Amino acid sequence: MKDEEKDTGRIEAFSDGVFSIAITLLALELKIPHSVEGGAEGLALALINQWPSYLSFVTSFCTILIMWGNHHEVFRFVRRANTGFMLANGFLLMLVTVVPFTTALISDYLNKPGAVVACAVYGGVFVLISVAYNLLWYAAVKDRALLRSGVPEQVIRKVTRNYRLGFPLYLLATAAAFVSPLVTIGICTALWVFWVFTMRRGGAGIHSF
Amino acid sequence: MKDEEKDTGRIEAFSDGVFSIAITLLALELKIPHSVEGGAEGLALALINQWPSYLSFVTSFCTILIMWGNHHEVFRFVRRANTGFMLANGFLLMLVTVVPFTTALISDYLNKPGAVVACAVYGGVFVLISVAYNLLWYAAVKDRALLRSGVPEQVIRKVTRNYRLGFPLYLLATAAAFVSPLVTIGICTALWVFWVFTMRRGGAGIHSF
Amino acid sequence: MKDEEKDTGRIEAFSDGVFSIAITLLALELKIPHSVEGGAEGLALALINQWPSYLSFVTSFCTILIMWGNHHEVFRFVRRANTGFMLANGFLLMLVTVVPFTTALISDYLNKPGAVVACAVYGGVFVLISVAYNLLWYAAVKDRALLRSGVPEQVIRKVTRNYRLGFPLYLLATAAAFVSPLVTIGICTALWVFWVFTMRRGGAGIHSF
Amino acid sequence: MKDEEKDTGRIEAFSDGVFSIAITLLALELKIPHSVEGGAEGLALALINQWPSYLSFVTSFCTILIMWGNHHEVFRFVRRANTGFMLANGFLLMLVTVVPFTTALISDYLNKPGAVVACAVYGGVFVLISVAYNLLWYAAVKDRALLRSGVPEQVIRKVTRNYRLGFPLYLLATAAAFVSPLVTIGICTALWVFWVFTMRRGGAGIHSF
Repeated sequence: MKDEEKDTGRIEAFSDGVFSIAITLLALELKIPHSVEGGAEGLALALINQWPSYLSFVTSFCTILIMWGNHHEVFRFVRRANTGFMLANGFLLMLVTVVPFTTALISDYLNKPGAVVACAVYGGVFVLISVAYNLLWYAAVKDRALLRSGVPEQVIRKVTRNYRLGFPLYLLATAAAFVSPLVTIGICTALWVFWVFTMRRGGAGIHSF
Repeated sequence: MKDEEKDTGRIEAFSDGVFSIAITLLALELKIPHSVEGGAEGLALALINQWPSYLSFVTSFCTILIMWGNHHEVFRFVRRANTGFMLANGFLLMLVTVVPFTTALISDYLNKPGAVVACAVYGGVFVLISVAYNLLWYAAVKDRALLRSGVPEQVIRKVTRNYRLGFPLYLLATAAAFVSPLVTIGICTALWVFWVFTMRRGGAGIHSF
Repeated sequence: MKDEEKDTGRIEAFSDGVFSIAITLLALELKIPHSVEGGAEGLALALINQWPSYLSFVTSFCTILIMWGNHHEVFRFVRRANTGFMLANGFLLMLVTVVPFTTALISDYLNKPGAVVACAVYGGVFVLISVAYNLLWYAAVKDRALLRSGVPEQVIRKVTRNYRLGFPLYLLATAAAFVSPLVTIGICTALWVFWVFTMRRGGAGIHSF
Repeated sequence: MKDEEKDTGRIEAFSDGVFSIAITLLALELKIPHSVEGGAEGLALALINQWPSYLSFVTSFCTILIMWGNHHEVFRFVRRANTGFMLANGFLLMLVTVVPFTTALISDYLNKPGAVVACAVYGGVFVLISVAYNLLWYAAVKDRALLRSGVPEQVIRKVTRNYRLGFPLYLLATAAAFVSPLVTIGICTALWVFWVFTMRRGGAGIHSF
């Protein structure tokens, strides 16, 4: 039992490492405008023209931050890990490390004809991440084998419902790319803003999509 | 209560991760001079001509290091986290990850016509960071809800005063860019040097800008 | 004794750091297609044509994840470290940081004439990693000097056998590059898939190649 | 007292983060040969021609690893931190993050006329690091204010002597660049190999340069 607690500790440390590196690498996609002409005004303009970079950076940063928060809360309920739980966690981490790539993709293509594809890929990775969260949570609550004792049934049901909601909403964000790429980013933004408000209102439960 | 302590622990670990990655990524802006002519002398000259890189690297490194120290001290006063505190912390971390970008910006443009804009952006991010610190501290001390018991009122008041000071000083550094870009960096350097001296003299309080 | 436990803690933290950074850097090899023509279709095609990147990313991510899991399990058996153990661990970490390089190599050359060499290098690093694991494990179990008390002899023997198996299998994967580069990746994939199945079936032992 | 122990814990975690990121970033200087002609043979040749990269990678990795080990051991003796200690630690970490830059420098220029300058810079940073270690150790042992109780005087004296030795030896390595660049790397290699042998022979003392 003591060993098992130690186990979760190291999985958390490893996951925290991956989350914090992925979230910091997001800023690497902010590019310095090179060989700008026109002095100060030219640089100011070049920086302003990079607005898709800033928009996608903020959206991805906030989304990963909230995912980390959710990850954190799942582990508060969990006492130990098994193989299924570790695989779901690994699948989740793999997708999280891909977010800097998809973020760079939309920041490059939001202004260009390829925007539809870029946003669909961006949203698609979040759909997969919501699948990974559902798998992680399913592995945690199945037969209550990994849960700490004393977690009330209604909390589990509420969290399950919240996680299930994330999948169709991110699917909607992905589909929205074919209407307008900015709608995809708008829905992603709405999701983390909504999460923050729920969290403010709510108690100690898990808040997620 | 025990759970809450664990919570702060994982927020600290995640924040430490982001701080340590951002501070290490600063060195990535040090570029190798490519295809230098003139042998050893040529390389030496090319390296010396990169002095804006070294200057901005050292300034940013020391500033982030002191910010980490301040972060560290805020968490020494704090017993648990709530939503407002976590959001302020997230906002702070987002800005910290941007520092390698603004550092690369000034190291590229300090010698060029765009220097004014580059330094204003560099200073502007530090203004926002001092806002984030004030929000974090405000969330921590509000109604003493998150504080550990036994923190004396006068320490809180002193820390509040110190944090409030940071905002106008970094605003000054930003405005100074329009006079001379090097003044911005000079003020930032003065701020962390001053901080070190205050720390040496002071006791266990929080010293920050 | 207490000190020694603390020691292992910091080695684990450092190793976790290296593993989590190396695994996150894998995603940096996913490149944004630049200056694509043909609008959305063009970008979609360019992204699909990068399939060797995705294949090598997934293979390397899963392999490093399982290596981290094995590392984790070795440290569960170990009570303290000595010089040999630390050197074997350092050798292992050095090779793990090289995996993003070899992964980028195969993702660049899988479609090109150099594929044989790229895949041989990719497999060769895994051969060396399996050597490092054997050295680490040998240092741990030698005279049972570093082991926690109460680890049954048969568990040690089983783990030793499993680790020994990894060396010839990765050697086979390396040699397979000269038949067909995709076979190398196929064997690497088979190895981590097989590991997952063994883990599901098995108990709390160490499962590795 | 308890607070102070927690303090050192977070400094160690932050330092471990910086060390593990810096050591992993070393591998980023290993470049993929682009647009190689001549198929498999061409790629093999291009990879072999990169030998200065591998040599400098291994040298820097082993040196940073041993520096981390030394850092680790200093903190075993230390009970709490003060301002001087934290500044020395910050200075040390700043220099450690620069090592990937100096490593990339020698791996680019070892074959070219600029090799003398590149190796002098590479050695110079190690000279500064040995200064930082001496400052850190001096801050730790001064008046025994930060030391844990029960550290024998002779251990302190032995460690002090070892650290003092590092400075002239790295100075020699730097000066050697003007004779032959490879001698610089040779001395650096000799230093960490020698360290490993001392460690094997020695007991629990600090072994360092």
